[in-house]
Amino acid sequence: MRAVFAAQGRRCHRLLKHVQRAILKSPNTGIQAVTLDRKDGMKRYEQLAEEFSASIRNGVMKPGDRMPSVRQASSSRGVSASTVFEAYYLLEARGLIRAQERSGYYVTAGGHQLPPEPELPLAGETASLPVKVSDLVFSVLAAVRTRDVAPLGSAFPSPLLYPLPRLARSLAHAAHAMDPWNTVDDITPGHAGLRRQIALRYLADGVYVQPDDIVITNGALEALNLCLQTVTRPGDAVVVESPTFYGALQALENLGLKAIEVPSNPREGIDLDLLAQALDMYRPAACWLMTNFQNPLGSLMPDEKKRALVGLLAAHVIPLIEDDVYGELYFGKRRPLPAKAFDEAGLVLHCSSFSKCLAPGYRLGWAIPGQFCQRVSRLKLMRTLAVAAPVQEGLCDYLVRGGYDRHLRQLRQALCRQQVALATAVLRHFPAGTRATRPEGGYFLWVELPHGVDTLALHAQGCALGISTAPGPMFSARAAFGHCMRLNYGHPWSDALEEAIATLGRLAGAQLAALKI
Amino acid sequence: MRAVFAAQGRRCHRLLKHVQRAILKSPNTGIQAVTLDRKDGMKRYEQLAEEFSASIRNGVMKPGDRMPSVRQASSSRGVSASTVFEAYYLLEARGLIRAQERSGYYVTAGGHQLPPEPELPLAGETASLPVKVSDLVFSVLAAVRTRDVAPLGSAFPSPLLYPLPRLARSLAHAAHAMDPWNTVDDITPGHAGLRRQIALRYLADGVYVQPDDIVITNGALEALNLCLQTVTRPGDAVVVESPTFYGALQALENLGLKAIEVPSNPREGIDLDLLAQALDMYRPAACWLMTNFQNPLGSLMPDEKKRALVGLLAAHVIPLIEDDVYGELYFGKRRPLPAKAFDEAGLVLHCSSFSKCLAPGYRLGWAIPGQFCQRVSRLKLMRTLAVAAPVQEGLCDYLVRGGYDRHLRQLRQALCRQQVALATAVLRHFPAGTRATRPEGGYFLWVELPHGVDTLALHAQGCALGISTAPGPMFSARAAFGHCMRLNYGHPWSDALEEAIATLGRLAGAQLAALKI
Repeated sequence: MRAVFAAQGRRCHRLLKHVQRAILKSPNTGIQAVTLDRKDGMKRYEQLAEEFSASIRNGVMKPGDRMPSVRQASSSRGVSASTVFEAYYLLEARGLIRAQERSGYYVTAGGHQLPPEPELPLAGETASLPVKVSDLVFSVLAAVRTRDVAPLGSAFPSPLLYPLPRLARSLAHAAHAMDPWNTVDDITPGHAGLRRQIALRYLADGVYVQPDDIVITNGALEALNLCLQTVTRPGDAVVVESPTFYGALQALENLGLKAIEVPSNPREGIDLDLLAQALDMYRPAACWLMTNFQNPLGSLMPDEKKRALVGLLAAHVIPLIEDDVYGELYFGKRRPLPAKAFDEAGLVLHCSSFSKCLAPGYRLGWAIPGQFCQRVSRLKLMRTLAVAAPVQEGLCDYLVRGGYDRHLRQLRQALCRQQVALATAVLRHFPAGTRATRPEGGYFLWVELPHGVDTLALHAQGCALGISTAPGPMFSARAAFGHCMRLNYGHPWSDALEEAIATLGRLAGAQLAALKI
Repeated sequence: MRAVFAAQGRRCHRLLKHVQRAILKSPNTGIQAVTLDRKDGMKRYEQLAEEFSASIRNGVMKPGDRMPSVRQASSSRGVSASTVFEAYYLLEARGLIRAQERSGYYVTAGGHQLPPEPELPLAGETASLPVKVSDLVFSVLAAVRTRDVAPLGSAFPSPLLYPLPRLARSLAHAAHAMDPWNTVDDITPGHAGLRRQIALRYLADGVYVQPDDIVITNGALEALNLCLQTVTRPGDAVVVESPTFYGALQALENLGLKAIEVPSNPREGIDLDLLAQALDMYRPAACWLMTNFQNPLGSLMPDEKKRALVGLLAAHVIPLIEDDVYGELYFGKRRPLPAKAFDEAGLVLHCSSFSKCLAPGYRLGWAIPGQFCQRVSRLKLMRTLAVAAPVQEGLCDYLVRGGYDRHLRQLRQALCRQQVALATAVLRHFPAGTRATRPEGGYFLWVELPHGVDTLALHAQGCALGISTAPGPMFSARAAFGHCMRLNYGHPWSDALEEAIATLGRLAGAQLAALKI
């Protein structure tokens, strides 16, 4: 079986290499067109989707109207049929149109206006700072842990969106069928069958990964911590995005590391020019970035920018810790590549998990640490030895039986619709001048309120009324972003959430009014 | 429910305090007698058991002979009936006698001679040293991971000794019944019901623990690492036993800590006089000790010595990290107390797990960190967030349904019999002058071969023949104990194991013969 897989792997690798060479050599291939023929950072299908969106939002096309057929749109716009399909798929994921079997696409009632996007790039400057955010983060997180709070500040989507009964069946089956000796065999680097299933998914997405490249961990958080500890020593500086995931700041704080915060573009991720300057200025030991649907911005780094990022870091021989836990939650047509796909030097330590996509609470993640694989594996053995064998066996059983992709399609559609619901509620209720990102995946909206609003105070006011939020200063060692916050749209939209947004809007408005007195 | 438990807890606490006061005030109570009336470090029932053992081993009593009735023995020896019962229980656990229903106790065929014990105390001196054992440890551990190797060097007992099918049923039931929101609720400090079950077990053993004192972790290893990181900073020195569990040395190495190795008595654990000297000389940041069935010696610190240990450390305000993973695997009549039972200052960070007693491969452990509870809990949140919710729910289900104590009784008897089998095989096959410990629990035998034998070389020779061992230098930052090794008796005795011991004996004999040439 292993030999068969190795052969498949080699074949797939050859194919990948062939495709990569084709992309590099012939700039006029169709593949190339998808990634390069863009205006304003948008791909052609995204432009087309944006045009249709505008028609829907400004009322030219009304709910119930039939969209042009793919053939009509293709010939009238001078684009390929597949570009039209991709645009329609994106519009459908955004809840603006709906396919009706054997009939075509129709405009839904969801064609709302959205808040304007944040200014690009975000203001901010790079600096190497010691980190001390944990107290703030813990006080904010504590506010999310009761069930009757409106979970806008939560880090998790609703667990009701996940196939927990199916997972329970797989877990039960695997635990009953498990060979007792697997309790020893499944010790780090982990269950061979599960690592094979994970590797197969990467291969299907065009990323060449072997099972032996993978170390199973207790969620992505352990993978990230292990990778960070492997490539740094206390006192080192590490590049993070600004704003960044507070878990990255806490990991730095834990290991006595300094943060170099490099401003990040809400659409396309970290600014490569500023990153290059920071590499020269601070000589960091590593970078810790989220290339796909960054938390908290939701930014998606274009694949070509990822290639440039990996090349830049390889030239400086600086490891990249890539947190890709949201990569599967894309609203577009295909999974965005991770930076790992462009890693030829083995310097990318890629981390992910099933926690956000499939199995919340199962704490099943992994690292693909490139040239650091053995060191990460050993550190894992010394810190926590292994991931629970029945959990590994259960997840493997689920993946082998199939159904994951069907679940993911439903999950993505739900998240995409919920984004529209949250964004339009923000537009309705928040003070004029509020801006919000439009992520193409994940479940976080980054909201910039007018300057003068204090989101830490707003957080405290909200908590007193049973509404949690994630205030901007959680996401920065500089305690910047005091007028920003991250809102979670991972929960089915409800009157309670609508009311919570309205309340937050009133509170923010009152803060602004008090300033003017 | 919580309120009921709290009331139970308070009542139990009052009772405990009452008992403790009684022990302290009236030195003539029966309770006191159990722990103090000892010669040569032995309790009265142990002395009695030792006398009977001698009669069996020197052939005065032969296999099939009926033991004196409890009444006879009690009156002829001038001890209480319960002392005779305890002695018989110990002899039964050691495989020397067997109860026959409504008939009495009979001598079994297992009355073998054992190797002499190591000299007390072990030679060695304290020193504060940087740690670098990982490469050796990993190369040794790698040799255990194939199933066809004789697992004498393994750290784990046979998984066949555990109720994995019953656990699988509980896991399946819990996963199916789990409220999806528990995936959030069960985040660190962990599942409330499971923490309550664990607290109840401690209360039943006479240790006052509240559910809120407990932090659920990925096995004891994570608990120990978290506790160590919480109470130290890089560069600090930490006291460990000599020899000590290599996992402790690796944890120190990981955090950039120095090891102060204090010689340990193979029967009673760390030498308190030498410990007191080391505290004054090196001002360590913490101690990391195993009070019950220490790995690798198998030593059991008497309860009064534990009280003195806790008092000594409290006087110096030095935290004690207590690794108690083998505490449930006692061969005597009752579970030895952990040092935590004597902790009034909240300075004992007690760590344990179900991995050795109940559920190998489930990676379910916990810390009871005293005054450091919140800090350990936060560190856990930042490093791995949580333990898999279905695993926590499944273990809780198992504990609520009952059967754990019955399983433990069977497990202890199996381990005790296997110890006799291993020890007698060592006596039969190893060179004259070989000594071995006689642990009263756990599943490790510490073997001292004649000086001149190199157990690292023996390990390499054994591996080439499919026999793993754990050479002494793994258990010391000084790479001491080069003529010692740890042997695992956690696997049902077999001809293959007997043959493996014979082979190791021949190899050791050949080493000694080569020295004489």
